[in-house]
Amino acid sequence: MTDTVWMNQLSWVDYQARVQRDQPPVLLPVGALEQHGPHLPLGTDGLLSSAVAADTAARVGGLVAPTLSYGYKSQPKCGGGQHFCGTTSVDAATLIGQVRDAVREFARHGLTKLVIVNGHYENQWFLIEGIDLGLRDLGPGAKLQVMRLEYWDFMTPDTLGDVFPDGFPGFALEHAAVLETSMMLHYHPSLVRMDLLPDDGPADFPPYDMYPPRTDWVPASGVLSSARGSDATKGRLLADEVARRMAEAIASGFERPAV
Amino acid sequence: MTDTVWMNQLSWVDYQARVQRDQPPVLLPVGALEQHGPHLPLGTDGLLSSAVAADTAARVGGLVAPTLSYGYKSQPKCGGGQHFCGTTSVDAATLIGQVRDAVREFARHGLTKLVIVNGHYENQWFLIEGIDLGLRDLGPGAKLQVMRLEYWDFMTPDTLGDVFPDGFPGFALEHAAVLETSMMLHYHPSLVRMDLLPDDGPADFPPYDMYPPRTDWVPASGVLSSARGSDATKGRLLADEVARRMAEAIASGFERPAV
Amino acid sequence: MTDTVWMNQLSWVDYQARVQRDQPPVLLPVGALEQHGPHLPLGTDGLLSSAVAADTAARVGGLVAPTLSYGYKSQPKCGGGQHFCGTTSVDAATLIGQVRDAVREFARHGLTKLVIVNGHYENQWFLIEGIDLGLRDLGPGAKLQVMRLEYWDFMTPDTLGDVFPDGFPGFALEHAAVLETSMMLHYHPSLVRMDLLPDDGPADFPPYDMYPPRTDWVPASGVLSSARGSDATKGRLLADEVARRMAEAIASGFERPAV
Amino acid sequence: MTDTVWMNQLSWVDYQARVQRDQPPVLLPVGALEQHGPHLPLGTDGLLSSAVAADTAARVGGLVAPTLSYGYKSQPKCGGGQHFCGTTSVDAATLIGQVRDAVREFARHGLTKLVIVNGHYENQWFLIEGIDLGLRDLGPGAKLQVMRLEYWDFMTPDTLGDVFPDGFPGFALEHAAVLETSMMLHYHPSLVRMDLLPDDGPADFPPYDMYPPRTDWVPASGVLSSARGSDATKGRLLADEVARRMAEAIASGFERPAV
Amino acid sequence: MTDTVWMNQLSWVDYQARVQRDQPPVLLPVGALEQHGPHLPLGTDGLLSSAVAADTAARVGGLVAPTLSYGYKSQPKCGGGQHFCGTTSVDAATLIGQVRDAVREFARHGLTKLVIVNGHYENQWFLIEGIDLGLRDLGPGAKLQVMRLEYWDFMTPDTLGDVFPDGFPGFALEHAAVLETSMMLHYHPSLVRMDLLPDDGPADFPPYDMYPPRTDWVPASGVLSSARGSDATKGRLLADEVARRMAEAIASGFERPAV
Amino acid sequence: MTDTVWMNQLSWVDYQARVQRDQPPVLLPVGALEQHGPHLPLGTDGLLSSAVAADTAARVGGLVAPTLSYGYKSQPKCGGGQHFCGTTSVDAATLIGQVRDAVREFARHGLTKLVIVNGHYENQWFLIEGIDLGLRDLGPGAKLQVMRLEYWDFMTPDTLGDVFPDGFPGFALEHAAVLETSMMLHYHPSLVRMDLLPDDGPADFPPYDMYPPRTDWVPASGVLSSARGSDATKGRLLADEVARRMAEAIASGFERPAV
Repeated sequence: MTDTVWMNQLSWVDYQARVQRDQPPVLLPVGALEQHGPHLPLGTDGLLSSAVAADTAARVGGLVAPTLSYGYKSQPKCGGGQHFCGTTSVDAATLIGQVRDAVREFARHGLTKLVIVNGHYENQWFLIEGIDLGLRDLGPGAKLQVMRLEYWDFMTPDTLGDVFPDGFPGFALEHAAVLETSMMLHYHPSLVRMDLLPDDGPADFPPYDMYPPRTDWVPASGVLSSARGSDATKGRLLADEVARRMAEAIASGFERPAV
Repeated sequence: MTDTVWMNQLSWVDYQARVQRDQPPVLLPVGALEQHGPHLPLGTDGLLSSAVAADTAARVGGLVAPTLSYGYKSQPKCGGGQHFCGTTSVDAATLIGQVRDAVREFARHGLTKLVIVNGHYENQWFLIEGIDLGLRDLGPGAKLQVMRLEYWDFMTPDTLGDVFPDGFPGFALEHAAVLETSMMLHYHPSLVRMDLLPDDGPADFPPYDMYPPRTDWVPASGVLSSARGSDATKGRLLADEVARRMAEAIASGFERPAV
Repeated sequence: MTDTVWMNQLSWVDYQARVQRDQPPVLLPVGALEQHGPHLPLGTDGLLSSAVAADTAARVGGLVAPTLSYGYKSQPKCGGGQHFCGTTSVDAATLIGQVRDAVREFARHGLTKLVIVNGHYENQWFLIEGIDLGLRDLGPGAKLQVMRLEYWDFMTPDTLGDVFPDGFPGFALEHAAVLETSMMLHYHPSLVRMDLLPDDGPADFPPYDMYPPRTDWVPASGVLSSARGSDATKGRLLADEVARRMAEAIASGFERPAV
Repeated sequence: MTDTVWMNQLSWVDYQARVQRDQPPVLLPVGALEQHGPHLPLGTDGLLSSAVAADTAARVGGLVAPTLSYGYKSQPKCGGGQHFCGTTSVDAATLIGQVRDAVREFARHGLTKLVIVNGHYENQWFLIEGIDLGLRDLGPGAKLQVMRLEYWDFMTPDTLGDVFPDGFPGFALEHAAVLETSMMLHYHPSLVRMDLLPDDGPADFPPYDMYPPRTDWVPASGVLSSARGSDATKGRLLADEVARRMAEAIASGFERPAV
Repeated sequence: MTDTVWMNQLSWVDYQARVQRDQPPVLLPVGALEQHGPHLPLGTDGLLSSAVAADTAARVGGLVAPTLSYGYKSQPKCGGGQHFCGTTSVDAATLIGQVRDAVREFARHGLTKLVIVNGHYENQWFLIEGIDLGLRDLGPGAKLQVMRLEYWDFMTPDTLGDVFPDGFPGFALEHAAVLETSMMLHYHPSLVRMDLLPDDGPADFPPYDMYPPRTDWVPASGVLSSARGSDATKGRLLADEVARRMAEAIASGFERPAV
Repeated sequence: MTDTVWMNQLSWVDYQARVQRDQPPVLLPVGALEQHGPHLPLGTDGLLSSAVAADTAARVGGLVAPTLSYGYKSQPKCGGGQHFCGTTSVDAATLIGQVRDAVREFARHGLTKLVIVNGHYENQWFLIEGIDLGLRDLGPGAKLQVMRLEYWDFMTPDTLGDVFPDGFPGFALEHAAVLETSMMLHYHPSLVRMDLLPDDGPADFPPYDMYPPRTDWVPASGVLSSARGSDATKGRLLADEVARRMAEAIASGFERPAV
């Protein structure tokens, strides 16, 4: 039991022993419950962020805390928007509070390395605020450091070049598209319906946003660019690179500079 | 894929179809990350509330939303208290906000039946406030009704008599004791360390609480009464009764009285 | 004037002298403005919590701070619910804030012993959060300790046996019933209308709650179990025991364990 | 019982009958727990606001809700400041929340006239915000109107001329001075210690405020101008005028202009 | 560039040098966007508070931070009320938060003297709360002191006597009247429309407030007393006195008393 | 006076007339007080966002509301970070609240078109939340629509190609670099110190963030990439294109699709 990476499967006694002996990094995945087209499940962002967190934890002797499964409100340009049935989001204050509390609690455990693994683009700035408020609560002497990352930022141009032989179109429209679909085919193939891939996209957005959102800007499927070309091999390639490079970042990133 | 009870495994298209066709109840499990002695994992409350939610959902054609895995702060008399390493809790405002947001979002989906399945005693009143604020936001014409329950309240005296042949000592000290341990042996036997059962308890508390908490009131193991006598058969008996009776409650409880 | 237990009747000079000389406990009663059937006044919870606080303070040389007269929202199973005219409640955040502020302020006075005397079941968890946040604000070096109690928990089985010769039915439905009515007959007989005692109850509730609340679950009178058999003698018996045992708790409960 | 003005002494049945039959104004006194020199009690502001509210209610067939006994933080120029032992205040958010909740709840009762009777200068703007937010919550169709007043604004120049034969020095330094002391001698003579009247004041303040407050600006007694000359006759004169004129205001002030 | 008083025109390098070398006071003007009759612009309160802040800063070697241009909600008796088109206000929590953040940030810069220059009557108490919370966040050892002032309190009776040869009617109705109009004629003559001066006022208000506000209490022009007699000479006289006396206050007010 | 674009220079009467007659768009600039290297002033983001807002308003008959001058906390990768003296930021809740209030107030005026012109990258997601909460407060029937934009998104690849003859390096490190410096040379040449241009950058950041921030990642000057090559001609080119294209967006973007 004690070699699991999943923190919620450890007894407190085992967890405490790990913390005191190894100062392990704890990875906190943050996802969303958000439409991902007809071919991917609502929980895609949480499933992927926890999967890469687990792979990374296995490489660095880390633990994975329970995923925050509800993310910030979906926006048309990055997630399709809040008008889709099934998308279930939280207000900024809720997500900020959840992260703030987590920072405070993990510091109380004596942890020194917390890694927040974001899998939903819209979450980023509320994670930042939650971390900032949590560290402010702890005061200047706290031993806990926090790393925050979006997992896709660990994909290299080389690998993206392999995945997109015709050229990587950029992360902007990568919602329920090749990257996520391939990684889901790698991690959770039974949850992907390749027979239902829509042909929508790429969506074309103006350089501004409108509120209430213009639902007519978004394809009815919720997919912003095509997932054609996705396969599990690409998914493994991406997943391996992300986990390997995240592990390297964790290995070196917590060392404070000499003062 | 579409016969799963897990909402996060459904695409939005499948979810929407289910909602529009069946008006299924959605069950939202709420747990905690909290010490449960040396023999049970930190995630026990979330694991059990989601397991009984899934069993119940299967009986009523319902769905299970992603678990809220972090609960309100552990109190000495019911969960041992916040001084244990590994217990990772949230402030009242965070939990209230999470539930408030969920109520608002599920109503937007067109859902009429939301069931909040609580597995952590300390959560109860903050769930109540979250539901109340969410329904207030929706206004008087909302079609969504919310059922809130603590799953152990569905255990009957008869069954408890069977589980405790020497007499049921009451729910007060049932933290990491026979009920939870037996149900974990039923649902997640690999996560239970029966070889590490402590002999602590029953704890004896005065009729008041002190803050900062008196950690000396609580056994060092975190167990408030003994888990001796736990077994998977008892666990299944309890789990079956809970799921069966929760299903009955859901089948009848959402019917509004004639006005 | 200076021998009063009521803090609001003391000048600040007298209060300061008491605090510096005696380190008296200050008792903060918390009530509600909530329906209590046709025979008891809306202010019952505040009247009773302040009365037992005053009796207790007299025994221990303590002071009683002004009552928090508005409590958390009434729930059908313990107070009848919010649909009764006259019930006047506060949101969780308000009650939490009030207690948090009080903790901070009494600590600033140099007080070491604050006793929060709750007379309204629904308040309990919001008092806990208020205390926790207040103490967090004060930081780890604070000298103030807080005791929180529900006054009815100081009634012993023996006394309850005397009050209920046919067996104590439990606290669950004790709203506007024999305990509260008897204590009101002891403390405030002119405010009790024994001629208007309803015959409702005992109410029978399912093992779950519905929101919006099912008002048809609650007797129209607001009384959850009968107050027949109430009398002032029982009230005095209960009041004396509560005050005596609360005084004992205060006398011993603030001593910190040797470390 | 039913002819009392104190809402907390009425049963909900009697209260509801009054509301439905008479549409009575409900007066909500707001005070403070704040130093008032060595001669007046800490609760002066709550005692006076509830006393004038009760006198007024008796004249207009109104009711008095339980006093909000804790007010906003004392400021040097109007109440001496927060550094006095015994002064026990709340944050702005707490007072705002309390009033917001009250507005919402009294509207739910079917009430049309709520009168907030302020007895602590520092409260004023937070009462305004609480009322505004409460009415915003109710929406544009609400039937409840709210009157807010500081009771001393109902004293006429003629009466102030009688009370101060050498000329009324203005309300600015009237903290624990002639007006409050005289009214306390009228309403609560046993709580006034005329033998302890300090000779401090009038205090002299610059046209700005400093934070942290300059405690050396405030006389050590906490009294900003002398209470010499206070007597119960003056107190009754003031109290009668205030109650009479408040009653007139309530009688006419709730009539909406023809549109 | 470096001799400007406007902080937003300095580079961070120049600002830091000023702070470290001179410990300059930083003045933070707070205004409103609020109707000021047909003859004055909506931004009058911000324009005047920043103008007097700049004049004062020039005298004391201080800096002026960017104005908070949105103030607390306009009230009928002091600003006409929220029903005027163009009045654009913030909730209490927003203004409190803005000031709290500013206090914390200026303290981080190493600043010791912050002067909050209020130009909108309704702001006062929310500025007080913001300062209090900011200083509480900083803790007892902070070096930053805050001065808060309403600029009109620096006008002397002598000068007011000159400006109002028939007697100063008091500040109560001075909204868009002689003082503000004269000062605007001094500072921003092109923004004043003397040809549009209304003849309204003085308004006559009862000694209480009603909510929702009685818009019929307020002249349709929004002017509470006449601005007849305003001229730039009077404006300069007032502006000079205010700046001179504010400068004196800043020069002496930050010296802490010997302990 | 009435042909000004600055809302705060209009009387309420003129503003109301404009709103009722023309339904003008109101542009709300949002900036920051943040280090911009030794050569640009702290207020750069507010100065630029208000300048492009004014240019745009002049083209579309719009108005410019007072700038929100304090932005969200500076991050190392986009603004250098909070450790620079002079950077003066607000918490998320403050910025969210300010925008929420603005949305509500402009809707009350009868406005239908609000354009939030962001000039500080870190603000974006808190503006989104503020808009969302404000529109939620207004309810589904509101006539106000909100456009939100970052002004640099209106620069076309062609123009960026002209400005960067060696290739546009991307917006990521464009803090106090060629784009901002050129635009400041166009709009506010006296506030730019070209003699102090640092040679720092381009900064090189890892694909994650650390908290507390790693100040050693950021050049000591605060400049993330060189501003060499900036000139006023480029600034005008950029400014003209931004204003022209923003004007086009406003002209067409508020038309709702036929339903």
